[in-house]
Amino acid sequence: MATDDAVRRAARIRLLALDVDGTLTDGTLFIGALGETMKGFSVRDGFGLTLLKEAGITRAIVTGRSSAIVERRAAELGIGIVLQGVRDKAQALTSLARDAGLTLAEVAYMGDDWPDLPALRIAGLAAAPADATAPVRACAHWVSGCRAGHGAVRELAEWLLAARGELDAHLARHQGD
Amino acid sequence: MATDDAVRRAARIRLLALDVDGTLTDGTLFIGALGETMKGFSVRDGFGLTLLKEAGITRAIVTGRSSAIVERRAAELGIGIVLQGVRDKAQALTSLARDAGLTLAEVAYMGDDWPDLPALRIAGLAAAPADATAPVRACAHWVSGCRAGHGAVRELAEWLLAARGELDAHLARHQGD
Amino acid sequence: MATDDAVRRAARIRLLALDVDGTLTDGTLFIGALGETMKGFSVRDGFGLTLLKEAGITRAIVTGRSSAIVERRAAELGIGIVLQGVRDKAQALTSLARDAGLTLAEVAYMGDDWPDLPALRIAGLAAAPADATAPVRACAHWVSGCRAGHGAVRELAEWLLAARGELDAHLARHQGD
Amino acid sequence: MATDDAVRRAARIRLLALDVDGTLTDGTLFIGALGETMKGFSVRDGFGLTLLKEAGITRAIVTGRSSAIVERRAAELGIGIVLQGVRDKAQALTSLARDAGLTLAEVAYMGDDWPDLPALRIAGLAAAPADATAPVRACAHWVSGCRAGHGAVRELAEWLLAARGELDAHLARHQGD
Repeated sequence: MATDDAVRRAARIRLLALDVDGTLTDGTLFIGALGETMKGFSVRDGFGLTLLKEAGITRAIVTGRSSAIVERRAAELGIGIVLQGVRDKAQALTSLARDAGLTLAEVAYMGDDWPDLPALRIAGLAAAPADATAPVRACAHWVSGCRAGHGAVRELAEWLLAARGELDAHLARHQGD
Repeated sequence: MATDDAVRRAARIRLLALDVDGTLTDGTLFIGALGETMKGFSVRDGFGLTLLKEAGITRAIVTGRSSAIVERRAAELGIGIVLQGVRDKAQALTSLARDAGLTLAEVAYMGDDWPDLPALRIAGLAAAPADATAPVRACAHWVSGCRAGHGAVRELAEWLLAARGELDAHLARHQGD
Repeated sequence: MATDDAVRRAARIRLLALDVDGTLTDGTLFIGALGETMKGFSVRDGFGLTLLKEAGITRAIVTGRSSAIVERRAAELGIGIVLQGVRDKAQALTSLARDAGLTLAEVAYMGDDWPDLPALRIAGLAAAPADATAPVRACAHWVSGCRAGHGAVRELAEWLLAARGELDAHLARHQGD
Repeated sequence: MATDDAVRRAARIRLLALDVDGTLTDGTLFIGALGETMKGFSVRDGFGLTLLKEAGITRAIVTGRSSAIVERRAAELGIGIVLQGVRDKAQALTSLARDAGLTLAEVAYMGDDWPDLPALRIAGLAAAPADATAPVRACAHWVSGCRAGHGAVRELAEWLLAARGELDAHLARHQGD
């Protein structure tokens, strides 16, 4: 469902910033008596983020909540940029781009809900899971066919690689061709 | 699917009381050897409840079970009124209204199962998730298109704001318009 | 989908024995480094089991696995008969009936998988969740329209009460009529 | 949906090696502040693996991640061969076969994602869950009608027994015929 405009935008991306709850997870917060006990991440999203790393695309996390869980998952995936407790996601994205020496046209953002809208509106590529809220889907350049926590980030990763013309080479390498 | 009567009722609401299991969660009780270990809440329901707070609507929790988990989630959302271990939910709702200086016509209640029926029958607005039990759906003025734990409370929150004519203003503010 | 034969069988039931994994849960085993950490039970199944208690029907649990989790959930529901680590479920059901002074025609059993077949074949009423394995569904007198962990036990409880002609009275009492 | 070729391959299998995340689970990684807290396994997959053991088929686990959780689940099921932290799954499968004194034609492998492709390409029987990634499904001799964590391994186990002409005997034994 990608438009030509979206593909052109995707080909320019050098950094992908991701919301967490409702984007890297299905939006369920598992709360215990002492606070958040765990989050459910997709192993396949993780592999997609590894592919992006191999392609030289910087990965970042930008989330309004705060937890050691996110630090842990980011460490597993080798994601060094983790911004938590973020009130203004547009400002966070602007800082991320500046610190990385990139223009916003080179930065993609994926999110699912109203607080993500300011970042989505300034990102070079705005992406959303299939089950994002209506205003987010309306704002996005690209909407995944998969729901959050069930492959949305993986599909984005593969699509970004395809837009660069690199997907088949990555697959061939993993197949041992 | 809201009737004119339901919209008129919604426009009067100044306090929303919510059941927990099967309303704020999908009804799964995660039980460990020492009791309930966690509950799964929707991050998007949480944002809806934050919107209601910003609109000046009081939020309350009324549940038959008891756990520190609910206190924790309520604290995260700034919900100060948490009634647990409630046997008679109609009486609890009546007390809530009186303590807040409101009539029952100004109080909404959302629940999913038989023990919620007495409260639903006296509430100014009776709401139910899409997957509520049949008698609850039959009793409700408004039934969400979303299942419990998967956006039912969020949809209710947005619909309450829309009934007050305030939804677009909230969205515009979050978009940074 | 209940046949006349199934309704006649249901009207005679004075004890309901239930399998756990795949019957009272959706069949997911949550395993941590030290063993099973929790099980996911349905709050609505629990209310159905409370209704059966109020109707004077004895409830029992018969499971092949063993965990303190099941003891905990049974205690919450006031289920005093909990048989764990059971190898021969037909023998367990026969013992249950004898100890309760009942004939097997007065005992119902609900299960989902092959190890439940011997008990299902001798029970006065054999019940299964919608997603039970094919041989179990073929063997059952009654198959729920709901999946395990998602209302199968609740639907069975309401149907047992309806077969006794008591369901409406229970609902009326809970509605405060 | 099994082809004649797949059935012939299945009849020769004496060892089944399984990926974990996305094959024995639905692919959700439950991450807490201190790392992975648990995995969700299917009780019915477990029973299928027990049937294979009774049929004399060796079971093995081959996974790229590492956790005590997998050791625990394997111990419950009596699976003695557990290879974790595996980088090259084809090499691992080759070693497994050699150590068991089998040819690769006698070894089946089930996996869901790109890192499983090298093992799938050399296995005597390559199997995949219904929701495996597209390249894996294209590579597999047999694709389950069930999703990972929801019966894919169980269906494979029953189908392997059926290909040997042993399924009915196993069922009859469990029914007490």
